Amino acid sequence: VVAAEDPIVIDAIADAVELGLIEPILIGNEERIRQIIQNKKLQAQIIPAIDPEEAAKIAVRMIKNKEADFLMKGLIETKVLLKAVVNSETGIKSGRLLSHVALFSMPTIDRVLLATDCAMNIQPDEDGMIGIIENAVQLAKTLDYKRPKIAVISAAEKVNPKLSSSVMAEKLTQHFQNVKDFFVQGPFALDNVVSLKSAQHKGLSGEVAGKADILIFPNLDAGNIFYKSAVFLANAEVAGVIVGAQCPIVLTSRSDSGRSKLNSIILAMVYNYGLQNLSN
Amino acid sequence: VVAAEDPIVIDAIADAVELGLIEPILIGNEERIRQIIQNKKLQAQIIPAIDPEEAAKIAVRMIKNKEADFLMKGLIETKVLLKAVVNSETGIKSGRLLSHVALFSMPTIDRVLLATDCAMNIQPDEDGMIGIIENAVQLAKTLDYKRPKIAVISAAEKVNPKLSSSVMAEKLTQHFQNVKDFFVQGPFALDNVVSLKSAQHKGLSGEVAGKADILIFPNLDAGNIFYKSAVFLANAEVAGVIVGAQCPIVLTSRSDSGRSKLNSIILAMVYNYGLQNLSN
Repeated sequence: VVAAEDPIVIDAIADAVELGLIEPILIGNEERIRQIIQNKKLQAQIIPAIDPEEAAKIAVRMIKNKEADFLMKGLIETKVLLKAVVNSETGIKSGRLLSHVALFSMPTIDRVLLATDCAMNIQPDEDGMIGIIENAVQLAKTLDYKRPKIAVISAAEKVNPKLSSSVMAEKLTQHFQNVKDFFVQGPFALDNVVSLKSAQHKGLSGEVAGKADILIFPNLDAGNIFYKSAVFLANAEVAGVIVGAQCPIVLTSRSDSGRSKLNSIILAMVYNYGLQNLSN
Repeated sequence: VVAAEDPIVIDAIADAVELGLIEPILIGNEERIRQIIQNKKLQAQIIPAIDPEEAAKIAVRMIKNKEADFLMKGLIETKVLLKAVVNSETGIKSGRLLSHVALFSMPTIDRVLLATDCAMNIQPDEDGMIGIIENAVQLAKTLDYKRPKIAVISAAEKVNPKLSSSVMAEKLTQHFQNVKDFFVQGPFALDNVVSLKSAQHKGLSGEVAGKADILIFPNLDAGNIFYKSAVFLANAEVAGVIVGAQCPIVLTSRSDSGRSKLNSIILAMVYNYGLQNLSN
Protein backbone atom coordinates (compact mmCIF):
# COMPACT_ATOMS: atom_id res chain seq x y z
CA VAL A 1 0.00 0.00 0.00
CA VAL A 2 1.61 3.20 -1.21
CA ALA A 3 1.31 6.05 1.31
CA ALA A 4 -0.76 3.83 3.57
CA GLU A 5 -1.56 6.57 6.10
CA ASP A 6 -5.23 6.59 5.03
CA PRO A 7 -7.82 5.25 7.51
CA ILE A 8 -10.32 4.24 4.80
CA VAL A 9 -7.75 2.27 2.81
CA ILE A 10 -6.51 0.59 5.98
CA ASP A 11 -10.11 -0.40 6.82
CA ALA A 12 -10.30 -2.26 3.49
CA ILE A 13 -6.88 -3.83 4.12
CA ALA A 14 -8.01 -4.98 7.57
CA ASP A 15 -11.12 -6.57 6.03
CA ALA A 16 -8.99 -8.45 3.51
CA VAL A 17 -6.57 -9.63 6.23
CA GLU A 18 -9.49 -10.82 8.35
CA LEU A 19 -10.67 -12.90 5.39
CA GLY A 20 -7.17 -14.43 5.21
CA LEU A 21 -6.61 -13.03 1.71
CA ILE A 22 -3.52 -10.86 1.96
CA GLU A 23 -0.39 -10.05 3.94
CA PRO A 24 -0.22 -6.25 3.83
CA ILE A 25 2.92 -4.18 3.46
CA LEU A 26 2.16 -0.62 4.53
CA ILE A 27 4.60 1.91 3.10
CA GLY A 28 4.55 5.57 4.15
CA ASN A 29 4.43 7.79 7.23
CA GLU A 30 5.25 5.26 9.94
CA GLU A 31 3.92 7.28 12.88
CA ARG A 32 0.54 7.94 11.29
CA ILE A 33 0.24 4.36 10.04
CA ARG A 34 0.89 3.05 13.58
CA GLN A 35 -1.73 5.47 14.98
CA ILE A 36 -4.33 4.23 12.49
CA ILE A 37 -3.71 0.52 12.99
CA GLN A 38 -3.23 0.49 16.77
CA ASN A 39 -6.88 -0.26 17.58
CA LYS A 40 -7.37 -2.74 14.77
CA LYS A 41 -5.13 -5.63 15.87
CA LEU A 42 -3.85 -5.53 12.29
CA GLN A 43 -0.68 -7.54 11.66
CA ALA A 44 1.22 -5.71 8.96
CA GLN A 45 4.73 -5.07 7.79
CA ILE A 46 5.41 -1.31 7.94
CA ILE A 47 8.08 0.34 5.82
CA PRO A 48 8.76 4.01 6.51
CA ALA A 49 9.01 6.50 3.65
CA ILE A 50 9.70 10.21 3.93
CA ASP A 51 6.98 11.20 1.46
CA PRO A 52 4.49 9.65 -0.98
CA GLU A 53 6.99 9.84 -3.83
CA GLU A 54 9.49 7.74 -1.90
CA ALA A 55 6.72 5.35 -0.84
CA ALA A 56 5.89 4.82 -4.52
CA LYS A 57 9.54 4.16 -5.41
CA ILE A 58 9.90 1.61 -2.60
CA ALA A 59 6.66 -0.13 -3.56
CA VAL A 60 7.58 -0.37 -7.24
CA ARG A 61 11.04 -1.71 -6.35
CA MET A 62 9.42 -4.41 -4.18
CA ILE A 63 7.20 -5.49 -7.09
CA LYS A 64 10.26 -5.62 -9.34
CA ASN A 65 12.12 -7.75 -6.75
CA LYS A 66 9.06 -9.98 -6.31
CA GLU A 67 8.83 -9.03 -2.64
CA ALA A 68 5.22 -7.95 -3.21
CA ASP A 69 2.45 -9.08 -5.57
CA PHE A 70 0.44 -5.97 -6.38
CA LEU A 71 0.05 -2.27 -5.55
CA MET A 72 -2.69 -0.37 -3.81
CA LYS A 73 -2.93 3.43 -3.75
CA GLY A 74 -3.19 5.17 -0.37
CA LEU A 75 -2.87 8.90 0.34
CA ILE A 76 -0.96 9.71 -2.82
CA GLU A 77 -1.98 11.46 -6.01
CA THR A 78 -2.63 8.97 -8.81
CA LYS A 79 -0.20 10.70 -11.15
CA VAL A 80 2.65 10.53 -8.58
CA LEU A 81 2.07 6.80 -8.12
CA LEU A 82 1.84 6.13 -11.86
CA LYS A 83 5.02 8.15 -12.53
CA ALA A 84 6.94 5.62 -10.41
CA VAL A 85 5.17 2.75 -12.19
CA VAL A 86 6.05 3.91 -15.71
CA ASN A 87 9.64 5.06 -15.01
CA SER A 88 11.59 3.49 -17.84
CA GLU A 89 14.54 2.47 -15.63
CA THR A 90 13.11 1.73 -12.20
CA GLY A 91 9.44 1.20 -13.13
CA ILE A 92 7.30 -1.84 -13.82
CA LYS A 93 5.91 -1.19 -17.30
CA SER A 94 5.04 -4.24 -19.35
CA GLY A 95 5.02 -2.60 -22.78
CA ARG A 96 1.22 -2.36 -22.68
CA LEU A 97 -0.95 0.71 -22.26
CA LEU A 98 -2.15 1.30 -18.71
CA SER A 99 -5.94 1.26 -18.47
CA HIS A 100 -8.66 0.87 -15.88
CA VAL A 101 -11.11 -2.03 -15.97
CA ALA A 102 -14.15 -2.15 -13.71
CA LEU A 103 -16.34 -5.15 -12.96
CA PHE A 104 -20.00 -4.71 -12.05
CA SER A 105 -22.67 -6.88 -10.53
CA MET A 106 -26.12 -5.33 -10.37
CA PRO A 107 -29.64 -6.45 -9.55
CA THR A 108 -31.06 -5.74 -13.03
CA ILE A 109 -28.46 -7.69 -15.06
CA ASP A 110 -28.17 -11.47 -14.86
CA ARG A 111 -24.42 -11.55 -15.40
CA VAL A 112 -21.27 -9.68 -14.45
CA LEU A 113 -20.27 -6.81 -16.77
CA LEU A 114 -16.74 -5.55 -17.30
CA ALA A 115 -16.35 -1.96 -18.49
CA THR A 116 -13.42 0.13 -19.63
CA ASP A 117 -12.08 2.80 -19.51
CA CYS A 118 -14.12 4.48 -16.78
CA ALA A 119 -11.31 6.08 -14.79
CA MET A 120 -8.05 6.71 -16.59
CA ASN A 121 -7.65 7.33 -20.35
CA ILE A 122 -9.35 10.59 -21.33
CA GLN A 123 -9.77 10.41 -25.12
CA PRO A 124 -7.99 7.35 -26.52
CA ASP A 125 -7.15 7.22 -30.24
CA GLU A 126 -7.45 4.00 -32.25
CA ASP A 127 -4.20 2.53 -30.86
CA GLY A 128 -5.31 3.48 -27.37
CA MET A 129 -8.69 1.78 -27.87
CA ILE A 130 -6.95 -1.35 -29.15
CA GLY A 131 -4.74 -1.37 -26.05
CA ILE A 132 -7.78 -0.88 -23.82
CA ILE A 133 -9.55 -3.83 -25.46
CA GLU A 134 -6.47 -6.07 -25.20
CA ASN A 135 -6.06 -5.22 -21.51
CA ALA A 136 -9.70 -6.00 -20.80
CA VAL A 137 -9.39 -9.31 -22.65
CA GLN A 138 -6.33 -10.22 -20.59
CA LEU A 139 -8.22 -9.52 -17.36
CA ALA A 140 -11.26 -11.48 -18.61
CA LYS A 141 -9.07 -14.46 -19.47
CA THR A 142 -7.70 -14.54 -15.92
CA LEU A 143 -11.34 -14.58 -14.75
CA ASP A 144 -11.87 -17.67 -16.90
CA TYR A 145 -13.89 -16.15 -19.74
CA LYS A 146 -13.07 -18.46 -22.65
CA ARG A 147 -14.30 -16.25 -25.53
CA PRO A 148 -15.35 -12.90 -24.06
CA LYS A 149 -17.95 -10.90 -26.01
CA ILE A 150 -16.84 -7.29 -26.34
CA ALA A 151 -19.19 -4.45 -27.32
CA VAL A 152 -17.89 -1.09 -28.52
CA ILE A 153 -20.38 1.47 -27.24
CA SER A 154 -21.61 4.59 -29.03
CA ALA A 155 -24.84 6.58 -28.96
CA ALA A 156 -26.30 4.53 -31.81
CA GLU A 157 -26.08 1.11 -33.42
CA LYS A 158 -25.58 2.51 -36.92
CA VAL A 159 -22.35 4.04 -38.20
CA ASN A 160 -22.83 7.79 -38.67
CA PRO A 161 -19.87 9.79 -40.04
CA LYS A 162 -20.83 12.70 -37.76
CA LEU A 163 -20.75 10.48 -34.66
CA SER A 164 -17.05 9.77 -34.22
CA SER A 165 -17.59 7.04 -31.61
CA SER A 166 -19.59 5.03 -34.15
CA VAL A 167 -16.83 5.35 -36.75
CA MET A 168 -14.23 4.27 -34.17
CA ALA A 169 -16.41 1.29 -33.23
CA GLU A 170 -16.52 0.17 -36.85
CA LYS A 171 -12.72 0.44 -37.16
CA LEU A 172 -12.20 -1.61 -34.00
CA THR A 173 -14.64 -4.27 -35.20
CA GLN A 174 -12.65 -4.54 -38.42
CA HIS A 175 -9.31 -4.60 -36.57
CA PHE A 176 -10.35 -7.61 -34.47
CA GLN A 177 -12.56 -9.38 -37.03
CA ASN A 178 -10.29 -12.40 -37.53
CA VAL A 179 -9.55 -12.99 -33.85
CA LYS A 180 -10.84 -16.36 -32.67
CA ASP A 181 -10.70 -16.25 -28.86
CA PHE A 182 -12.78 -13.11 -28.29
CA PHE A 183 -15.45 -11.19 -30.22
CA VAL A 184 -15.37 -7.44 -30.81
CA GLN A 185 -18.47 -5.78 -32.31
CA GLY A 186 -19.83 -2.27 -32.57
CA PRO A 187 -21.18 0.30 -32.70
CA PHE A 188 -23.89 -0.46 -30.19
CA ALA A 189 -26.05 1.80 -28.07
CA LEU A 190 -25.89 0.65 -24.45
CA ASP A 191 -29.36 -0.93 -24.40
CA ASN A 192 -28.48 -3.11 -27.43
CA VAL A 193 -25.84 -4.96 -25.43
CA VAL A 194 -27.40 -5.29 -21.99
CA SER A 195 -30.95 -6.14 -23.12
CA LEU A 196 -31.59 -9.02 -25.52
CA LYS A 197 -35.11 -7.65 -26.02
CA SER A 198 -33.76 -4.27 -27.05
CA ALA A 199 -31.30 -5.92 -29.46
CA GLN A 200 -34.16 -7.91 -31.01
CA HIS A 201 -36.30 -4.75 -31.34
CA LYS A 202 -33.49 -3.21 -33.35
CA GLY A 203 -33.02 -6.37 -35.41
CA LEU A 204 -29.46 -6.86 -34.19
CA SER A 205 -27.87 -10.28 -34.16
CA GLY A 206 -24.42 -11.77 -33.69
CA GLU A 207 -22.39 -12.96 -30.72
CA VAL A 208 -22.38 -9.69 -28.82
CA ALA A 209 -25.82 -8.05 -29.26
CA GLY A 210 -27.84 -8.38 -26.05
CA LYS A 211 -25.20 -10.43 -24.24
CA ALA A 212 -21.92 -8.52 -24.06
CA ASP A 213 -19.41 -9.38 -21.34
CA ILE A 214 -17.16 -6.33 -21.77
CA LEU A 215 -18.29 -2.79 -22.61
CA ILE A 216 -15.78 -0.49 -24.32
CA PHE A 217 -16.61 3.21 -23.87
CA PRO A 218 -15.49 5.85 -26.38
CA ASN A 219 -13.93 8.18 -23.81
CA LEU A 220 -13.56 8.94 -20.11
CA ASP A 221 -16.76 11.02 -19.88
CA ALA A 222 -18.86 8.20 -21.27
CA GLY A 223 -17.15 5.50 -19.19
CA ASN A 224 -17.27 7.49 -16.00
CA ILE A 225 -20.97 8.26 -16.46
CA PHE A 226 -21.66 4.54 -16.94
CA TYR A 227 -19.63 3.69 -13.83
CA LYS A 228 -21.39 6.26 -11.68
CA SER A 229 -24.84 5.37 -13.08
CA ALA A 230 -24.24 1.71 -12.30
CA VAL A 231 -23.06 2.36 -8.74
CA PHE A 232 -25.28 5.27 -7.69
CA LEU A 233 -28.47 4.67 -9.72
CA ALA A 234 -28.51 0.90 -10.29
CA ASN A 235 -27.06 -0.27 -6.94
CA ALA A 236 -24.16 -2.05 -8.60
CA GLU A 237 -21.39 -3.66 -6.63
CA VAL A 238 -18.12 -2.75 -8.26
CA ALA A 239 -14.47 -3.68 -8.33
CA GLY A 240 -11.80 -1.88 -10.31
CA VAL A 241 -8.17 -2.35 -11.20
CA ILE A 242 -5.47 -0.75 -13.35
CA VAL A 243 -4.26 -3.23 -15.95
CA GLY A 244 -1.19 -3.09 -18.17
CA ALA A 245 1.75 -2.86 -15.74
CA GLN A 246 3.72 -5.86 -14.49
CA CYS A 247 1.22 -6.16 -11.65
CA PRO A 248 -2.32 -4.95 -11.00
CA ILE A 249 -2.77 -1.60 -9.28
CA VAL A 250 -5.75 -0.95 -7.03
CA LEU A 251 -6.87 2.68 -7.15
CA THR A 252 -9.91 3.39 -5.09
CA SER A 253 -11.38 6.81 -4.57
CA ARG A 254 -12.78 8.41 -1.45
CA SER A 255 -16.32 8.05 -2.75
CA ASP A 256 -16.03 4.26 -3.19
CA SER A 257 -17.66 2.18 -0.49
CA GLY A 258 -15.56 -0.02 1.82
CA ARG A 259 -17.12 -3.01 0.11
CA SER A 260 -15.96 -1.86 -3.33
CA LYS A 261 -12.43 -1.32 -2.01
CA LEU A 262 -12.41 -4.89 -0.71
CA ASN A 263 -13.87 -6.11 -4.03
CA SER A 264 -11.04 -4.33 -5.86
CA ILE A 265 -8.38 -5.97 -3.69
CA ILE A 266 -9.92 -9.37 -4.46
CA LEU A 267 -10.10 -8.60 -8.19
CA ALA A 268 -6.42 -7.60 -8.17
CA MET A 269 -5.53 -10.86 -6.40
CA VAL A 270 -7.42 -13.06 -8.83
CA TYR A 271 -6.04 -11.18 -11.82
CA ASN A 272 -2.50 -11.38 -10.47
CA TYR A 273 -2.87 -15.11 -9.86
CA GLY A 274 -4.16 -15.54 -13.40
CA LEU A 275 -1.29 -13.49 -14.83
CA GLN A 276 1.27 -15.81 -13.21
CA ASN A 277 -0.54 -18.82 -14.68
CA LEU A 278 -0.83 -17.26 -18.15
CA SER A 279 2.90 -16.55 -18.20
CA ASN A 280 3.85 -20.04 -16.94
CA VAL B 1 -49.02 12.01 -35.45
CA VAL B 2 -46.75 12.17 -38.47
CA ALA B 3 -46.83 8.95 -40.53
CA ALA B 4 -49.18 7.39 -38.00
CA GLU B 5 -49.15 3.93 -39.62
CA ASP B 6 -47.18 2.49 -36.69
CA PRO B 7 -48.98 0.03 -34.38
CA ILE B 8 -46.76 0.80 -31.37
CA VAL B 9 -47.28 4.56 -31.63
CA ILE B 10 -51.01 4.07 -32.07
CA ASP B 11 -51.07 1.91 -28.93
CA ALA B 12 -49.65 4.86 -26.97
CA ILE B 13 -52.12 7.23 -28.65
CA ALA B 14 -54.99 4.92 -27.71
CA ASP B 15 -53.80 4.87 -24.07
CA ALA B 16 -53.73 8.69 -23.99
CA VAL B 17 -57.20 8.90 -25.55
CA GLU B 18 -58.53 6.41 -23.01
CA LEU B 19 -57.21 8.68 -20.25
CA GLY B 20 -59.07 11.57 -21.86
CA LEU B 21 -55.86 13.49 -22.50
CA ILE B 22 -55.76 14.05 -26.25
CA GLU B 23 -57.74 14.22 -29.47
CA PRO B 24 -55.49 12.50 -31.99
CA ILE B 25 -54.96 13.57 -35.59
CA LEU B 26 -53.43 10.67 -37.49
CA ILE B 27 -51.65 11.77 -40.67
CA GLY B 28 -50.27 9.25 -43.16
CA ASN B 29 -51.18 6.11 -45.05
CA GLU B 30 -54.96 6.07 -44.57
CA GLU B 31 -55.51 2.41 -45.42
CA ARG B 32 -52.86 1.14 -43.03
CA ILE B 33 -53.96 3.53 -40.27
CA ARG B 34 -57.56 2.27 -40.58
CA GLN B 35 -56.32 -1.33 -40.43
CA ILE B 36 -54.38 -0.64 -37.26
CA ILE B 37 -57.16 1.22 -35.42
CA GLN B 38 -60.11 -0.93 -36.47
CA ASN B 39 -59.97 -3.21 -33.42
CA LYS B 40 -59.21 -0.47 -30.94
CA LYS B 41 -62.45 1.57 -30.97
CA LEU B 42 -60.14 4.58 -31.32
CA GLN B 43 -61.90 7.83 -32.26
CA ALA B 44 -59.43 9.78 -34.37
CA GLN B 45 -59.29 12.27 -37.19
CA ILE B 46 -57.40 10.71 -40.12
CA ILE B 47 -55.68 12.83 -42.77
CA PRO B 48 -54.27 10.97 -45.76
CA ALA B 49 -50.75 11.71 -46.99
CA ILE B 50 -48.98 10.10 -49.92
CA ASP B 51 -45.70 9.61 -48.07
CA PRO B 52 -44.03 10.48 -44.75
CA GLU B 53 -42.59 13.69 -46.22
CA GLU B 54 -46.06 14.97 -47.11
CA ALA B 55 -47.36 13.84 -43.71
CA ALA B 56 -44.67 15.98 -42.06
CA LYS B 57 -45.57 19.01 -44.20
CA ILE B 58 -49.27 18.68 -43.38
CA ALA B 59 -48.56 18.26 -39.67
CA VAL B 60 -46.27 21.29 -39.51
CA ARG B 61 -48.82 23.41 -41.37
CA MET B 62 -51.50 22.38 -38.88
CA ILE B 63 -49.28 23.49 -35.98
CA LYS B 64 -48.65 26.79 -37.75
CA ASN B 65 -52.41 27.28 -38.28
CA LYS B 66 -53.09 26.33 -34.64
CA GLU B 67 -55.18 23.35 -35.77
CA ALA B 68 -52.97 21.06 -33.66
CA ASP B 69 -51.00 21.53 -30.43
CA PHE B 70 -47.94 19.33 -30.75
CA LEU B 71 -46.25 16.75 -32.98
CA MET B 72 -45.55 13.08 -32.49
CA LYS B 73 -43.29 11.03 -34.74
CA GLY B 74 -44.67 7.84 -36.29
CA LEU B 75 -43.10 5.73 -39.05
CA ILE B 76 -40.89 8.49 -40.38
CA GLU B 77 -37.17 9.06 -40.15
CA THR B 78 -36.36 11.71 -37.55
CA LYS B 79 -34.38 13.77 -40.03
CA VAL B 80 -37.28 13.89 -42.52
CA LEU B 81 -39.64 15.10 -39.79
CA LEU B 82 -37.18 17.69 -38.50
CA LYS B 83 -36.50 18.97 -42.03
CA ALA B 84 -40.16 20.00 -42.25
CA VAL B 85 -39.98 21.52 -38.76
CA VAL B 86 -36.96 23.72 -39.51
CA ASN B 87 -37.93 24.79 -43.05
CA SER B 88 -37.38 28.55 -42.99
CA GLU B 89 -40.55 29.36 -44.94
CA THR B 90 -43.09 26.71 -44.05
CA GLY B 91 -41.57 25.39 -40.80
CA ILE B 92 -42.14 26.09 -37.11
CA LYS B 93 -38.74 27.20 -35.86
CA SER B 94 -38.75 29.50 -32.86
CA GLY B 95 -35.24 30.89 -33.24
CA ARG B 96 -33.98 28.50 -30.58
CA LEU B 97 -31.78 25.45 -30.97
CA LEU B 98 -33.69 22.16 -31.15
CA SER B 99 -32.68 19.82 -28.35
CA HIS B 100 -33.98 16.76 -26.54
CA VAL B 101 -34.83 16.79 -22.85
CA ALA B 102 -35.63 13.62 -20.93
CA LEU B 103 -37.25 13.34 -17.53
CA PHE B 104 -36.50 10.38 -15.25
CA SER B 105 -38.06 8.91 -12.16
CA MET B 106 -36.18 6.01 -10.62
CA PRO B 107 -36.33 3.97 -7.44
CA THR B 108 -32.88 5.01 -6.19
CA ILE B 109 -33.33 8.81 -6.48
CA ASP B 110 -35.79 10.72 -4.31
CA ARG B 111 -36.64 13.30 -6.97
CA VAL B 112 -37.23 13.63 -10.68
CA LEU B 113 -34.13 14.29 -12.82
CA LEU B 114 -34.12 16.08 -16.16
CA ALA B 115 -31.25 15.29 -18.52
CA THR B 116 -30.12 16.71 -21.82
CA ASP B 117 -29.07 16.11 -24.56
CA CYS B 118 -29.44 12.33 -24.63
CA ALA B 119 -30.87 11.92 -28.13
CA MET B 120 -30.18 14.67 -30.62
CA ASN B 121 -27.17 17.02 -30.59
CA ILE B 122 -23.98 15.03 -31.23
CA GLN B 123 -21.14 17.29 -30.09
CA PRO B 124 -22.45 20.75 -29.20
CA ASP B 125 -20.04 23.70 -29.04
CA GLU B 126 -20.34 26.40 -26.37
CA ASP B 127 -23.26 28.15 -28.10
CA GLY B 128 -24.96 24.79 -28.54
CA MET B 129 -24.51 23.96 -24.86
CA ILE B 130 -25.94 27.36 -23.90
CA GLY B 131 -28.98 26.67 -26.11
CA ILE B 132 -29.38 23.21 -24.58
CA ILE B 133 -29.32 24.68 -21.08
CA GLU B 134 -31.82 27.43 -21.98
CA ASN B 135 -34.20 24.87 -23.53
CA ALA B 136 -34.03 22.67 -20.45
CA VAL B 137 -34.69 25.67 -18.21
CA GLN B 138 -37.74 26.60 -20.30
CA LEU B 139 -39.13 23.08 -19.93
CA ALA B 140 -38.38 23.05 -16.20
CA LYS B 141 -40.20 26.37 -15.75
CA THR B 142 -43.31 24.93 -17.40
CA LEU B 143 -43.03 22.06 -14.88
CA ASP B 144 -43.09 24.68 -12.10
CA TYR B 145 -39.45 24.54 -11.03
CA LYS B 146 -38.90 28.03 -9.60
CA ARG B 147 -35.07 28.04 -9.57
CA PRO B 148 -33.86 24.85 -11.21
CA LYS B 149 -30.40 23.58 -10.19
CA ILE B 150 -28.39 22.67 -13.26
CA ALA B 151 -25.25 20.52 -13.14
CA VAL B 152 -22.80 20.39 -16.03
CA ILE B 153 -21.44 16.84 -16.06
CA SER B 154 -17.89 15.74 -16.81
CA ALA B 155 -15.75 12.80 -15.70
CA ALA B 156 -14.37 14.78 -12.76
CA GLU B 157 -15.25 17.63 -10.42
CA LYS B 158 -11.98 19.49 -11.02
CA VAL B 159 -11.15 21.43 -14.18
CA ASN B 160 -8.43 19.60 -16.12
CA PRO B 161 -7.18 21.25 -19.33
CA LYS B 162 -6.86 17.78 -20.91
CA LEU B 163 -10.51 16.94 -20.14
CA SER B 164 -12.44 19.18 -22.53
CA SER B 165 -15.81 18.54 -20.88
CA SER B 166 -14.46 19.98 -17.63
CA VAL B 167 -13.22 23.10 -19.40
CA MET B 168 -16.60 23.51 -21.11
CA ALA B 169 -18.37 23.11 -17.76
CA GLU B 170 -16.28 25.91 -16.28
CA LYS B 171 -17.11 28.20 -19.23
CA LEU B 172 -20.83 27.50 -18.90
CA THR B 173 -20.73 28.15 -15.15
CA GLN B 174 -19.12 31.53 -15.85
CA HIS B 175 -21.60 32.32 -18.65
CA PHE B 176 -24.59 31.87 -16.35
CA GLN B 177 -23.02 33.08 -13.09
CA ASN B 178 -25.16 36.21 -12.76
CA VAL B 179 -28.48 34.58 -13.62
CA LYS B 180 -30.92 34.72 -10.71
CA ASP B 181 -33.73 32.32 -11.62
CA PHE B 182 -31.66 29.19 -12.20
CA PHE B 183 -28.25 27.91 -11.07
CA VAL B 184 -25.63 26.47 -13.42
CA GLN B 185 -22.56 24.80 -11.89
CA GLY B 186 -19.87 22.42 -13.07
CA PRO B 187 -17.85 20.44 -13.70
CA PHE B 188 -19.28 17.62 -11.66
CA ALA B 189 -18.85 13.88 -11.90
CA LEU B 190 -22.27 12.22 -11.97
CA ASP B 191 -22.11 10.93 -8.39
CA ASN B 192 -21.43 14.47 -7.07
CA VAL B 193 -24.84 15.64 -8.22
CA VAL B 194 -27.09 12.68 -7.49
CA SER B 195 -25.62 11.75 -4.10
CA LEU B 196 -25.32 14.33 -1.33
CA LYS B 197 -23.02 11.92 0.53
CA SER B 198 -20.71 11.70 -2.47
CA ALA B 199 -20.67 15.51 -2.78
CA GLN B 200 -19.76 15.81 0.89
CA HIS B 201 -16.99 13.20 0.54
CA LYS B 202 -15.47 15.39 -2.14
CA GLY B 203 -15.95 18.56 -0.08
CA LEU B 204 -18.29 20.08 -2.66
CA SER B 205 -20.85 22.68 -1.65
CA GLY B 206 -23.18 25.16 -3.35
CA GLU B 207 -26.73 25.01 -4.69
CA VAL B 208 -26.20 22.16 -7.13
CA ALA B 209 -23.81 19.64 -5.52
CA GLY B 210 -25.73 16.56 -4.43
CA LYS B 211 -29.13 17.96 -5.41
CA ALA B 212 -29.20 18.83 -9.11
CA ASP B 213 -32.53 18.98 -10.96
CA ILE B 214 -31.12 19.08 -14.51
CA LEU B 215 -28.06 17.21 -15.76
CA ILE B 216 -26.23 18.64 -18.78
CA PHE B 217 -24.13 16.05 -20.62
CA PRO B 218 -21.06 17.00 -22.67
CA ASN B 219 -22.11 15.12 -25.82
CA LEU B 220 -24.52 12.59 -27.27
CA ASP B 221 -22.45 9.53 -26.28
CA ALA B 222 -22.41 10.59 -22.63
CA GLY B 223 -26.09 11.60 -22.58
CA ASN B 224 -27.26 8.48 -24.36
CA ILE B 225 -25.29 6.24 -22.01
CA PHE B 226 -26.90 7.98 -19.02
CA TYR B 227 -30.37 7.59 -20.58
CA LYS B 228 -29.89 3.90 -21.32
CA SER B 229 -28.28 3.22 -17.93
CA ALA B 230 -31.20 4.88 -16.16
CA VAL B 231 -33.83 2.96 -18.13
CA PHE B 232 -32.19 -0.44 -18.56
CA LEU B 233 -30.04 -0.72 -15.41
CA ALA B 234 -31.81 1.48 -12.86
CA ASN B 235 -35.44 0.75 -13.80
CA ALA B 236 -36.18 4.41 -14.52
CA GLU B 237 -39.48 5.57 -15.90
CA VAL B 238 -38.77 8.08 -18.62
CA ALA B 239 -40.43 10.74 -20.74
CA GLY B 240 -38.74 12.70 -23.50
CA VAL B 241 -39.51 15.62 -25.74
CA ILE B 242 -37.82 17.79 -28.36
CA VAL B 243 -37.73 21.39 -27.18
CA GLY B 244 -36.98 24.56 -29.17
CA ALA B 245 -39.57 24.60 -31.96
CA GLN B 246 -42.91 26.42 -31.76
CA CYS B 247 -44.40 23.28 -30.22
CA PRO B 248 -43.04 20.19 -28.48
CA ILE B 249 -42.20 17.16 -30.60
CA VAL B 250 -42.54 13.66 -29.22
CA LEU B 251 -39.96 11.29 -30.69
CA THR B 252 -40.08 7.84 -29.25
CA SER B 253 -38.00 4.96 -30.43
CA ARG B 254 -38.88 1.34 -30.98
CA SER B 255 -37.01 0.30 -27.86
CA ASP B 256 -39.04 2.61 -25.58
CA SER B 257 -41.76 0.94 -23.56
CA GLY B 258 -45.43 1.76 -24.15
CA ARG B 259 -45.43 3.42 -20.75
CA SER B 260 -42.57 5.74 -21.72
CA LYS B 261 -44.35 6.70 -24.95
CA LEU B 262 -47.43 7.65 -22.92
CA ASN B 263 -45.22 9.53 -20.43
CA SER B 264 -43.71 11.47 -23.32
CA ILE B 265 -47.13 12.45 -24.67
CA ILE B 266 -48.06 13.72 -21.21
CA LEU B 267 -44.79 15.63 -20.85
CA ALA B 268 -45.39 17.29 -24.24
CA MET B 269 -48.93 18.27 -23.16
CA VAL B 270 -47.80 19.81 -19.88
CA TYR B 271 -44.90 21.61 -21.56
CA ASN B 272 -47.16 22.92 -24.32
CA TYR B 273 -49.70 24.16 -21.80
CA GLY B 274 -46.90 25.88 -19.87
CA LEU B 275 -45.52 27.46 -23.07
CA GLN B 276 -48.90 29.07 -23.80
CA ASN B 277 -49.01 30.46 -20.25
CA LEU B 278 -45.41 31.72 -20.38
CA SER B 279 -46.13 33.59 -23.60
CA ASN B 280 -49.40 35.07 -22.29
